[in-house]
Amino acid sequence: MIFIGERINAGFKDIKKSIEEKDGSIIQEWAKKQKAAGANYIDVNLGTASNKPEDLCWMIEEVQKAVELPISIDNNKPSMLKEAIPACNKPPLINSTTADDGRMDELFPLVSEHNASIIGLVMDESGSPKSADKRVENAGKLLAKAMEYGIEPEQLFLDPIVMPLKYMQEQAQEILSAANQFRLFSDPPPHIVCGLSNVSNGTKHKKLINRTFAIMLVANGLDAVICDVTDEDLVNAILTAELAMNRQIYADSYIEAFRK
Amino acid sequence: MIFIGERINAGFKDIKKSIEEKDGSIIQEWAKKQKAAGANYIDVNLGTASNKPEDLCWMIEEVQKAVELPISIDNNKPSMLKEAIPACNKPPLINSTTADDGRMDELFPLVSEHNASIIGLVMDESGSPKSADKRVENAGKLLAKAMEYGIEPEQLFLDPIVMPLKYMQEQAQEILSAANQFRLFSDPPPHIVCGLSNVSNGTKHKKLINRTFAIMLVANGLDAVICDVTDEDLVNAILTAELAMNRQIYADSYIEAFRK
Repeated sequence: MIFIGERINAGFKDIKKSIEEKDGSIIQEWAKKQKAAGANYIDVNLGTASNKPEDLCWMIEEVQKAVELPISIDNNKPSMLKEAIPACNKPPLINSTTADDGRMDELFPLVSEHNASIIGLVMDESGSPKSADKRVENAGKLLAKAMEYGIEPEQLFLDPIVMPLKYMQEQAQEILSAANQFRLFSDPPPHIVCGLSNVSNGTKHKKLINRTFAIMLVANGLDAVICDVTDEDLVNAILTAELAMNRQIYADSYIEAFRK
Repeated sequence: MIFIGERINAGFKDIKKSIEEKDGSIIQEWAKKQKAAGANYIDVNLGTASNKPEDLCWMIEEVQKAVELPISIDNNKPSMLKEAIPACNKPPLINSTTADDGRMDELFPLVSEHNASIIGLVMDESGSPKSADKRVENAGKLLAKAMEYGIEPEQLFLDPIVMPLKYMQEQAQEILSAANQFRLFSDPPPHIVCGLSNVSNGTKHKKLINRTFAIMLVANGLDAVICDVTDEDLVNAILTAELAMNRQIYADSYIEAFRK
């Protein structure tokens, strides 16, 4: 599993404050904590705290002072990305594009030029998809366009767009079915990723719903996840599901080994 | 989900003792405890404690003194079943037959005559299946033969045969894939059941592995499970997975409502 740590997001008060005060210590601390928990990428999100490229670059640099992990740049503005990507020491993951031609034609050249990766949300100008079929159609558009730009399937992270179970319960099955079909696109297949926490929006049993749906997604091919990597129960559940998918070799101490 | 409580099994010392001493209080207590935890059937298993039909009938009667739930008779000997089935107040679930013609021809007439249900293990005289395809082939045999005897798909509980993750890790995906295909056999489809605890045999993190694999099975159509229904985390995980499968309508208090 490729764990993408979601915590350095200006939606959290401590991160917002650290940006405003240019106090990198909190960002560095969260970078280290997420790495220790098993993160493979550190997501960096300015939210509404700022729209200045220099603030995004500052966040990236603070993370890189603390850990050597690659960055997931949670921003979809070409003007921001053009400055943020070169600030990354390792090829970043760009989070994200939609399947709109206009957007892909702006972002894919950046991905290609910097040997980066990109999350492709399977939605287009008509809005969020309602069916598995529409998701698969948009995934096909993303993959075809990526190939035009010389982007390999492994550089594309398809996101089936997780919807809140509480408000759109019937969408869960469409999402699972779509993920399952993404696996069949190419060999090697594109990655399959999601922003997990959306599934539990507004619910009472958030962590239980997050980890249960994560397991169901792993059973349908999910191999990357944007989540709270410090949620040990969630990570343990995902590690266990990956054993059942035969992606990791079983050892009695598989959980303990992951945390070493 | 159809929860089949596994605890009244002479493999447990307290149950074995209660049979030897004909002390029904322990059996009655476990029947009540499993009902309170949400069991829909109470499985009754003599194990190696006895091979006398009267002992099996006694166990069934003790359960029925305590709760009104139907019995899952965990025995495959026609001589035992012929006495045990009439001891049941409600049509029982017979646990189990294989896809051997000889076995099906002995057991299906009993199922049909008593309007019972039966678990069909998707194995035959050649032994445990190694592939999803072989499982599906045996499931087809079970369903076809059941229909010959006038047994409806809803009376048949197909069991894909869960194998230990530790020793046969590659089997997990075959099991999930087989379950997924069982759903397509008929409309309405047969039930899909498993003896869950086998997946965690010999492992260190038994409960975590049990509930993770249960969720993955629910994502592939499982709608009945023989398990420790008193494991609250397991039951909560299954209830949550069923929400994502749109089998229960979401309510914030879905867990609390189940336990009422």
